[in-house]
Amino acid sequence: MTISRTLPALAERRRFYRLALRLAARSRRAILRRIARGFERSLKADATLVTEADFEAELALRTGIRQAFPDHGILGEEFPPLHPEADFQWILDPIDGTLSFTHGIPFFGTILALHYRGRPLVGVIDHPGLGLCYGAGLGLGAWRNGQRLRIRDARVPDLEREVISAGDRSRFVQCRSGAAFDTLVRRHPHVRGYTDCIGHTLAAEGKIGAVVDYGVRPWDIAATRLLVEEAGGRYVCAYHGRQDGQPLYGIIAGKPTVVRWLLTIFRSPRHTRG
Amino acid sequence: MTISRTLPALAERRRFYRLALRLAARSRRAILRRIARGFERSLKADATLVTEADFEAELALRTGIRQAFPDHGILGEEFPPLHPEADFQWILDPIDGTLSFTHGIPFFGTILALHYRGRPLVGVIDHPGLGLCYGAGLGLGAWRNGQRLRIRDARVPDLEREVISAGDRSRFVQCRSGAAFDTLVRRHPHVRGYTDCIGHTLAAEGKIGAVVDYGVRPWDIAATRLLVEEAGGRYVCAYHGRQDGQPLYGIIAGKPTVVRWLLTIFRSPRHTRG
Repeated sequence: MTISRTLPALAERRRFYRLALRLAARSRRAILRRIARGFERSLKADATLVTEADFEAELALRTGIRQAFPDHGILGEEFPPLHPEADFQWILDPIDGTLSFTHGIPFFGTILALHYRGRPLVGVIDHPGLGLCYGAGLGLGAWRNGQRLRIRDARVPDLEREVISAGDRSRFVQCRSGAAFDTLVRRHPHVRGYTDCIGHTLAAEGKIGAVVDYGVRPWDIAATRLLVEEAGGRYVCAYHGRQDGQPLYGIIAGKPTVVRWLLTIFRSPRHTRG
Repeated sequence: MTISRTLPALAERRRFYRLALRLAARSRRAILRRIARGFERSLKADATLVTEADFEAELALRTGIRQAFPDHGILGEEFPPLHPEADFQWILDPIDGTLSFTHGIPFFGTILALHYRGRPLVGVIDHPGLGLCYGAGLGLGAWRNGQRLRIRDARVPDLEREVISAGDRSRFVQCRSGAAFDTLVRRHPHVRGYTDCIGHTLAAEGKIGAVVDYGVRPWDIAATRLLVEEAGGRYVCAYHGRQDGQPLYGIIAGKPTVVRWLLTIFRSPRHTRG
């Protein structure tokens, strides 16, 4: 292993983590200002919604990253990639859950993460509408508004009292099959649709047993693995091909026992460790 | 029509409304105190969860009502009915969404309503975990934290961009059939599981297109009709028989166009105006 393949040291990861929290605060201010001023929504080429808030928040993040680390790469949802060959890559989704955002439902969030040669070092999900910021650093733990997160695993007899969050059925159809969704809602009494990043943060807190999220892009899940694993949970990711030039994934994350149970009922060889 | 059948005058309804808001604040304080102190959960005879917070909040509400109106009836989830023959009936659910509450998911709420001879005069849903209080009085409008709510109806071409909230599939099975749930999640791309009263308040705000909620008891829906109708929405309620001595209902409420579309896809003669 060459020196360039070694992971950045703890002190450096801590520095990245603190920057990520400052960036999240910056993007949060941009989003809250835009909510106060009002915004227009428009349709992107792929028929998904976008607003001025998406652009303003991503610009705020990009500016902050380029000031601090001009040679780091940036992969964001709204602008072309920067330095795609760099070892350090910031992955950004300024507003995950645009449908919620444009409807005034406060369950959207800003996702940002720093990966080093594909390995996540720092992950942050910020919910401006809820005043909640979740962050994790590799070896640094997972935190919510400065409070340490520790997932307590579920016991098998209590499985049916756990809440499982799943995205829309159409997302299952996109990646697997509607049958997987239908099996899940028949087998488990509490399947809730806390979609987008709110499902990921509820899983990292251990408030829900697990989140199942299909049809997600790299930026949708860029922070989730670290948040869940650093909190003591299990994260499983499967690759489901490419769409519009971007890879498409499905994830299952949360309490280890609940994730194991979900893998059993889905029984799919395509689910591999992320 | 005799004098006793006339509805209380506007000034009196306003007085009831103000009391309901004060009661909600009282119950909110009891719940937040209990969250700070910690609580035990236990199973009731019907296998649903209950905590000390449920009892303390309902006691706070009952005490306040009896001080103000000793002859009013009270129907609450946790204690036996008081003056069940009275014209004025307060209907209480101290913690709707106990599963969310015990898991630390902030989407639970306190429901209270005053009905006069079966007709709702006042309805309040308070979310202590979100700092949001929704209230409506007959002819007094619907409000969130003092801000007037006005639902803007959806246009038919935009239907598929509306979010529809539906409870767990098991609740559809209880009242109608799993097929109704399966049809809904196949026909509509954005079905989210904002169950319990959070779905009702999101509908009253017009943030979601509509909420579909089956297997609900009188206290679960006691405030919803007024909140939605006073905000300019449509509310439809169907009776689905009795269980454990209490009637069971299904409701569809929200933007008129979305409610109409849902009634069409369910095509059930059992859905009648509430």
